[in-house]
Amino acid sequence: MPTTQTIEQLAIDTIRTLSIDAINSANSGHPGLPIGAAPMAYALWAQQMNHNPGNSKWFNRDRFVLSAGHGSALLYSLLHLSGYGVSLDDVKQFRKLNSKTPGHPEFGHTDGVEATTGPLGQGVAMAVGMAMAEAHLAAKFNQEGFPVIDHYTYALVGDGCLMEGVSYEAMSMAGHMKLGKLVVLYDSNDISLDGDLSLSFGENMQKRVESANWEYLRVEDGNDVAQIAAAIAKAKQNTSQPTLIEVRTIIGYGSPVAGTSKAHGNPLGLEGAKATKEAYGWNYAEDFTVPADVRAHYAELKEQGAAKEAAWNDLLAAYTAQYPAEGKLLAQVIDGAVQIAAGDVKTFDSGKAISTRVASGEAINHFVKQIPAIFGGSADLSNSTMTDIKGDQHFAVESYAGRNIYFGVREHAMGAAGNGLALHGGVKPFVSTFFVFSDYLRPAIRLAALQKLPVIYVFTHDSIAVGEDGPTHEPIEHLAALRTIPGLTVIRPSDANETASAWAYALQQNEGPVALVLSRQNLPVFEETKANVADVAKGGYILAETNAQPDVILIGTGSEVSLAMNAKAELEKDNLSVRVVAMPSRELFDRQPDAYKESVLPAAVTKRVAIEAGISLGWDRFAGPEGKLLTIDTFGASGPGTQVMEYFGFSTSNVVRLAKELL
Amino acid sequence: MPTTQTIEQLAIDTIRTLSIDAINSANSGHPGLPIGAAPMAYALWAQQMNHNPGNSKWFNRDRFVLSAGHGSALLYSLLHLSGYGVSLDDVKQFRKLNSKTPGHPEFGHTDGVEATTGPLGQGVAMAVGMAMAEAHLAAKFNQEGFPVIDHYTYALVGDGCLMEGVSYEAMSMAGHMKLGKLVVLYDSNDISLDGDLSLSFGENMQKRVESANWEYLRVEDGNDVAQIAAAIAKAKQNTSQPTLIEVRTIIGYGSPVAGTSKAHGNPLGLEGAKATKEAYGWNYAEDFTVPADVRAHYAELKEQGAAKEAAWNDLLAAYTAQYPAEGKLLAQVIDGAVQIAAGDVKTFDSGKAISTRVASGEAINHFVKQIPAIFGGSADLSNSTMTDIKGDQHFAVESYAGRNIYFGVREHAMGAAGNGLALHGGVKPFVSTFFVFSDYLRPAIRLAALQKLPVIYVFTHDSIAVGEDGPTHEPIEHLAALRTIPGLTVIRPSDANETASAWAYALQQNEGPVALVLSRQNLPVFEETKANVADVAKGGYILAETNAQPDVILIGTGSEVSLAMNAKAELEKDNLSVRVVAMPSRELFDRQPDAYKESVLPAAVTKRVAIEAGISLGWDRFAGPEGKLLTIDTFGASGPGTQVMEYFGFSTSNVVRLAKELL
Repeated sequence: MPTTQTIEQLAIDTIRTLSIDAINSANSGHPGLPIGAAPMAYALWAQQMNHNPGNSKWFNRDRFVLSAGHGSALLYSLLHLSGYGVSLDDVKQFRKLNSKTPGHPEFGHTDGVEATTGPLGQGVAMAVGMAMAEAHLAAKFNQEGFPVIDHYTYALVGDGCLMEGVSYEAMSMAGHMKLGKLVVLYDSNDISLDGDLSLSFGENMQKRVESANWEYLRVEDGNDVAQIAAAIAKAKQNTSQPTLIEVRTIIGYGSPVAGTSKAHGNPLGLEGAKATKEAYGWNYAEDFTVPADVRAHYAELKEQGAAKEAAWNDLLAAYTAQYPAEGKLLAQVIDGAVQIAAGDVKTFDSGKAISTRVASGEAINHFVKQIPAIFGGSADLSNSTMTDIKGDQHFAVESYAGRNIYFGVREHAMGAAGNGLALHGGVKPFVSTFFVFSDYLRPAIRLAALQKLPVIYVFTHDSIAVGEDGPTHEPIEHLAALRTIPGLTVIRPSDANETASAWAYALQQNEGPVALVLSRQNLPVFEETKANVADVAKGGYILAETNAQPDVILIGTGSEVSLAMNAKAELEKDNLSVRVVAMPSRELFDRQPDAYKESVLPAAVTKRVAIEAGISLGWDRFAGPEGKLLTIDTFGASGPGTQVMEYFGFSTSNVVRLAKELL
Repeated sequence: MPTTQTIEQLAIDTIRTLSIDAINSANSGHPGLPIGAAPMAYALWAQQMNHNPGNSKWFNRDRFVLSAGHGSALLYSLLHLSGYGVSLDDVKQFRKLNSKTPGHPEFGHTDGVEATTGPLGQGVAMAVGMAMAEAHLAAKFNQEGFPVIDHYTYALVGDGCLMEGVSYEAMSMAGHMKLGKLVVLYDSNDISLDGDLSLSFGENMQKRVESANWEYLRVEDGNDVAQIAAAIAKAKQNTSQPTLIEVRTIIGYGSPVAGTSKAHGNPLGLEGAKATKEAYGWNYAEDFTVPADVRAHYAELKEQGAAKEAAWNDLLAAYTAQYPAEGKLLAQVIDGAVQIAAGDVKTFDSGKAISTRVASGEAINHFVKQIPAIFGGSADLSNSTMTDIKGDQHFAVESYAGRNIYFGVREHAMGAAGNGLALHGGVKPFVSTFFVFSDYLRPAIRLAALQKLPVIYVFTHDSIAVGEDGPTHEPIEHLAALRTIPGLTVIRPSDANETASAWAYALQQNEGPVALVLSRQNLPVFEETKANVADVAKGGYILAETNAQPDVILIGTGSEVSLAMNAKAELEKDNLSVRVVAMPSRELFDRQPDAYKESVLPAAVTKRVAIEAGISLGWDRFAGPEGKLLTIDTFGASGPGTQVMEYFGFSTSNVVRLAKELL
């Protein structure tokens, strides 16, 4: 080791060599970014970021998202050295089955990982959501002299993240929202997987981010810790704009493949590692060495982190003493648990028809009084998806305390920001758009499911009943497509009451996202569905029947439940005995005990019609081999909604016809 | 009519009043854009655009995409007045069921509609694809003095399109590709659905587009036809950069709700229409009036269009005379039909294992020699998805004639551009990324299916066998999710030979998109699959069996077919008779006659195991009530691919175990 080498440099080289060794050991991984970005990661984690490795859940910690998730080895090296719950053995198990150090960072799996990343662009958009949560909670809770919510959010991105549409959307949104406590470090190395970045990308990054109301800073030498730290410090000073710091680096710095795309995603190999370590002046023959000085250095930093949290705990105690109501509420929202008594569920009169989107809007406005942490909005469709919290302000535009978020026409960033809101905690996020556009945020929904985040999606205009807007706006395959995502609960309520129950269900569960799929058109309101949260939680239940041995079972979801009810009335005129099963959530029903499922859909009753204005996929299982399906397996058509429904067979008379064919 | 009113102004007001009346008649639609953007639409269509309303398929016409598809009434008014196959009665049937004038423009449904639009941002990205096709064909075919391919592509966008991530990606790509013959008109009116645009959007548009290497022009008065026409003319002069012209307009100009979000999506009503027409000095009491002068004006323009096509036909004839080989090839690629003889299908030796992604790459390089119109690439993963055409150049970077497209990390724009390439014609487009990222381009895949476009998707790394990259990169639900899209054919070939056959199938069919889903890992190659295009076209077939009355049927797709073959060998040691059914495409199999399906999966053989490394949804139908499924309904895990497969039960021994449990 050259005697002139500073502890900073030694720490950086330790980050690098740990990453190199982990990737070599796995014979899989991406050394380029960990090596190139180690100095900026060091500058941030050791010198600029407030965090306490002893408690990764400290609420007021600065958040760090490795948006370039393929650089996971960097993160694991940092977590290990900093003193999070990642041991050296864990680092050695990089990319091994069931290790704590999987190929891409996984939230909830590894201590200190703030977000699951890897699909490019998602991380920076989740960071935007985290910064939104911070700004919102600070505005709601902070008092003069008591900045109890006061932290920064950092993301580290590569070229790939910045080429993804979701990053533009998220950055445009963050700039418009003036999220001054968001800082993005851009590992700018002119290399992408296909080779030189100039093959596919040539934006003027300064102009780009400035066009979106960001501050742009640039560090020419990505190995200069002092320059990087100074830039971060400067970014922190600007609290009215987010900042992007372009840090010019050399991918795979010091390695034989430095500056080439070969450094991106291939292990250096033993020879390459040896040459690279020599280039660093690294004096340790053994792989996975952490020099004692580096250990001591990080131990000291860890103590500093613990002291920061201790100081915050004192601040919070003093705050709670002086503002007991606010202190109690803050503790509640940080905890996040919600309980809604049956009597507190909004109900609707069965006298008049109402769309489930309107019912959803009333449910939001009802529940927000009990659950002030509710925070959400729509992608420029609040007047259609009915998501406005009445009398409340628009977040960022009017006040950061406002609970109505206007996401703009940015469905994808909205979805990812929803994940960031949930990851941050302290808020109960919901996001909303037309159901057909659920495709636009699908990558973010998958990440919500993978991270088990309690994000609520309000998807309205849920079928061909959309009508005049035609096939581009009529969901056909979307119910089936959402049901394919593991861990996502899809609920399509039968009426207004069930919509309120679905909201109550969604707000109370904290494990995984819930999609509420709602009608544009008015629907009858049933008496039986009032506050039926327990029914909704079972996914499917007997809504109405004549006697326990029905001739036929009509199974419906959403707007088609009322069709089934109408058909039942018609069929009973012919002295037929009909059971109507409402099935708001197939996946919740699937999870019930066999005895319950048998009680709802007895094997003995083989005459069944399943009705849903969506594709047939999966319904044969519920209708059974002798059953019939009333579904739609083609794209829709433009015309008045009732006519379009009729045209595709969604009419009482057609349900009656199908049932009679069975009998 | 004021005597000073020009024919231009009268034509513009006719566009406006036709749109107003159509929307009122439908009691549904979006009057704001048609009214505000009528002058720019007039300037473009009447004064700047080369088109022949008498032949909407003229190959060298300028393309126009109404990216803001909700303004469909504008397009129908333009099509009718210009003399396309849209009658006044058609305009009157706006948004009525089965009319030629649905709520959003639909390609293939209405004469002169170049693209189906409505989902925001898609249109401008499709326009980028069209401009790419133009640049490519011009470079391939034009000769000195013979610019046989020489047209512009125009898109009209609103704020909504420009807020969508796909538009940033597409514009970044177009700027990088220097698509100088692409011109975007931006209807800039400061209003979005939620109200003032400032609630959600505040970008500096000039900086934004300049950052992406576009020229920015601005027209302050959106009613000034001369200014707009001059800006378009200027944009056309710049052939090294695409141009965005920001045209400042007033939404719903002249109406009582002008300049407010109320003008966006609500019919003006009879009173509103009356007041608006008065504001225009419109002298015709009857709705849907086209003044005779306007009729005459457009008749003249139509003649000019016909003359332009006639001149081009002469040019093409002279070109073909002078360059007969090129002329013949050009005629072929314009026609688009492809026929591949059985003997021309690439085959692979059954001796050694090869991944289907590598086989796909070899198939591309094989077929491109027969089908020079093949044109495509990958989203920064060409080295992983194996899509490079060897020895050919990179489009735009090296030469517009190059057939390798480097889309950058822009999956969504790649998908939409693929649609634009197919819409333009003259090329056989394919696009490629990791299968898990099919979610990123899903909205574009839906539009390909809706438009019945022959786009080929090459999706590699198709299961948990991806291994170390872990759950963020391991497709689980994606096969099921793609199968939900009406009109999309999903093919997951069993081996290298079947991959070549699937390519042959995809290249030859011209009705709707095809997704090829391919393995990362090596797979055995079978003898039976050589050039089995007919088998692939049937979706499922008997790959191997012992005798015609098997004890058990093993059904597999993709990499799991070889598992089934291995299990068959094991089971036969116990004197069991086993049939292996390869099912590369469930949807193609579903379309076969019942007799064929019965021959492959006889009802009498109820012992079946269906094997697919994806979710179970839909497989019970093939396995039957007594069958078993070997699928995965949770997210995957990070680790070596073979270990991950084994961990989730995808092993020969487990297939054998399941089969024996049945027997």
